[in-house]
Amino acid sequence: MTHNIHITKATESNVSKLDFNNIPLGRTFTDHMFICSYEDGAWQTPKIQPLGMIPTHPAAMALHYGQAIFEGMKATVNAAGEPLLFRPEQNAKRLNFSARRMGMPEFPEDLFVEGLKKIVDMERGWIPPQEGSALYLRPFMYATEPFIGMRAATSYHFIIIASPAGPFFTKRIKLYAETKYIRAAEGGTGEAKAAGNYAAAIRPTEIAKSKGFDQVLWLDAHEFNFIQEVGTMNIFFKINGKFITPSLDGAILDGITRKSVITILEDNGYEVEQRPIKLDEIKEASANGTLEEAFGTGTAVGIAMIQAIGHKDEEIHVSDESPVGQMVMDTINGVRAGKLEDKHNWMVSVVA
Amino acid sequence: MTHNIHITKATESNVSKLDFNNIPLGRTFTDHMFICSYEDGAWQTPKIQPLGMIPTHPAAMALHYGQAIFEGMKATVNAAGEPLLFRPEQNAKRLNFSARRMGMPEFPEDLFVEGLKKIVDMERGWIPPQEGSALYLRPFMYATEPFIGMRAATSYHFIIIASPAGPFFTKRIKLYAETKYIRAAEGGTGEAKAAGNYAAAIRPTEIAKSKGFDQVLWLDAHEFNFIQEVGTMNIFFKINGKFITPSLDGAILDGITRKSVITILEDNGYEVEQRPIKLDEIKEASANGTLEEAFGTGTAVGIAMIQAIGHKDEEIHVSDESPVGQMVMDTINGVRAGKLEDKHNWMVSVVA
Ligand SMILES: Cc1ncc(COP(=O)(O)O)c(C=O)c1O
Ligand SMILES: Cc1ncc(COP(=O)(O)O)c(C=O)c1O
Repeated sequence: MTHNIHITKATESNVSKLDFNNIPLGRTFTDHMFICSYEDGAWQTPKIQPLGMIPTHPAAMALHYGQAIFEGMKATVNAAGEPLLFRPEQNAKRLNFSARRMGMPEFPEDLFVEGLKKIVDMERGWIPPQEGSALYLRPFMYATEPFIGMRAATSYHFIIIASPAGPFFTKRIKLYAETKYIRAAEGGTGEAKAAGNYAAAIRPTEIAKSKGFDQVLWLDAHEFNFIQEVGTMNIFFKINGKFITPSLDGAILDGITRKSVITILEDNGYEVEQRPIKLDEIKEASANGTLEEAFGTGTAVGIAMIQAIGHKDEEIHVSDESPVGQMVMDTINGVRAGKLEDKHNWMVSVVA
Repeated sequence: MTHNIHITKATESNVSKLDFNNIPLGRTFTDHMFICSYEDGAWQTPKIQPLGMIPTHPAAMALHYGQAIFEGMKATVNAAGEPLLFRPEQNAKRLNFSARRMGMPEFPEDLFVEGLKKIVDMERGWIPPQEGSALYLRPFMYATEPFIGMRAATSYHFIIIASPAGPFFTKRIKLYAETKYIRAAEGGTGEAKAAGNYAAAIRPTEIAKSKGFDQVLWLDAHEFNFIQEVGTMNIFFKINGKFITPSLDGAILDGITRKSVITILEDNGYEVEQRPIKLDEIKEASANGTLEEAFGTGTAVGIAMIQAIGHKDEEIHVSDESPVGQMVMDTINGVRAGKLEDKHNWMVSVVA
């Protein structure tokens, strides 16, 4: 089905002001935004219009009760300059999973993908061409109804904005295994990409950084032992030649990079087990020399190699090299850049 | 200290359009709002201006990462028509407690109280005069910085809006003891008045309502047995002449009504124990006839008498009358209306 997207073009583009070799992270936005309002029980005509301020009532429920969810994904270009999306239907599905948990209306998945294609096609000049760079896309939905009281809102905005992102030159990272604060517990909102989960992580992450770590390693809320995830990444360990990653237990985000990494590892002959993993087990593997690699996986960074994990007064050394992690990263970047075979049909062209 | 609040008056008031005998709940706002911006590491000049739409960047961090907190309180009038606030310094303190947990800047507590006084003084014509009615005040703070990335924002708004609220005619309520979803766990954000906590509760509350209950009774995240709180209220039980209420365990909001109710009960010779309470204990007390009363306490409703609690397939009967609950409610309403002695100096006049 093709939707009628109402388009108003910006009178001029800001793209010429962007230095593609020096992109300020997270603060540059493209010329347009995709916006669709939910009113009277239905999504109204979707629009693409110049990105600009949105008049917001001070009682808009998202600002009070946090009905707000988002997605994150990247558009890349292949050698021919053709813009590509990575598994966008997965983000569409996850947005609706989040919507259900947060009592918000679902957004039509075909319109989600169509809106992404359309805006990326219009903003193709903003996609940084270097491998590892991308146009970061941020679809999100929030409650707009001005109302004081505890219930689901009756009006929402679904919006897509885009921001060019240079390559992440990530050094090997050090994690801080958090034993006081939690990100999420089963039965809560951890498996949804809900705004409140991120706010909960800000202060603990500041504390971890002040102690010299790069990211928080989140542990379970009961025993502070089972490993959940890392900042905005899922986590993988290689022990004795085999990979393990925490199973989706109801508190962990079902990462699209995670599921792609599992596929790539299996394509390369590795066994990948999804199961509960105790920090104790990682500690033991580190001590007896069987912990070979660990890395985080997520859209923003791709693959982030892990050097060490701080836990209370101990430092668990992981590894100084991550050859398999590197292979996985090169595979994802290569597929995204159209240089490697796209075996699983992950890449979606934005033009029909 | 007196702050310089910059005031711009609305050209005309909407108060004449309000039918005080039929106030639409949560959707009527007074003429003005108090607004103060945090920029460059400091709170800027506070303003009172006509309530209106706020231009908001689509990347405003509150909409994505949920850095948003709020307070809720009520202004009443005494027989002389003088507007009164109830323990506003407690809300100022709790806002800053929430701010610290969420990595947000603290708001000066004296300015919080001064801003409230000033706006209530200006909007005094909006305070419904009937006992049990009030002008609901909503101070809140949220991240305004347009930024894609996980960290504390560098700019915020602190705003106070006000909405007239008629008396709550609450019937005795039935609670649904939730055994799948959680509101909060220790180490999370449950003890902060953070937007995301409320979004987490929306879907479970809808489910409870669809089963014929009025509110969710939240249980702990580990055993689903320890009682936390009810909707947006703390909870009290009277067993064998004595009161118990869950202790503040790190996942429960430190309610201002809760602490006031403890004082009123003690003033009236009741013993009040704050300690962990298992649902099992309530069940047993109901079975052996020692469960005499239960009620929820919170700003919005005041005191809500509890009839019964549904737990899995059982219904725990509480009581059909709540004489002590009623006495507590009458005491709070009487003090707020200036009719009963204000022994503890809770009421604060808005005029100097
Ligand atoms: C909490 C959290 N975990 C994991 C991920 C990784 O998910 P994805 O691979 O879909 O980007 C993200 C998001 O990016 C996240 O926010
Ligand atoms: C989760 C929650 N618990 C309890 C309360 C009661 O707090 P207070 O008595 O300060 O209104 C509230 C707020 O109103 C609340 O939101």
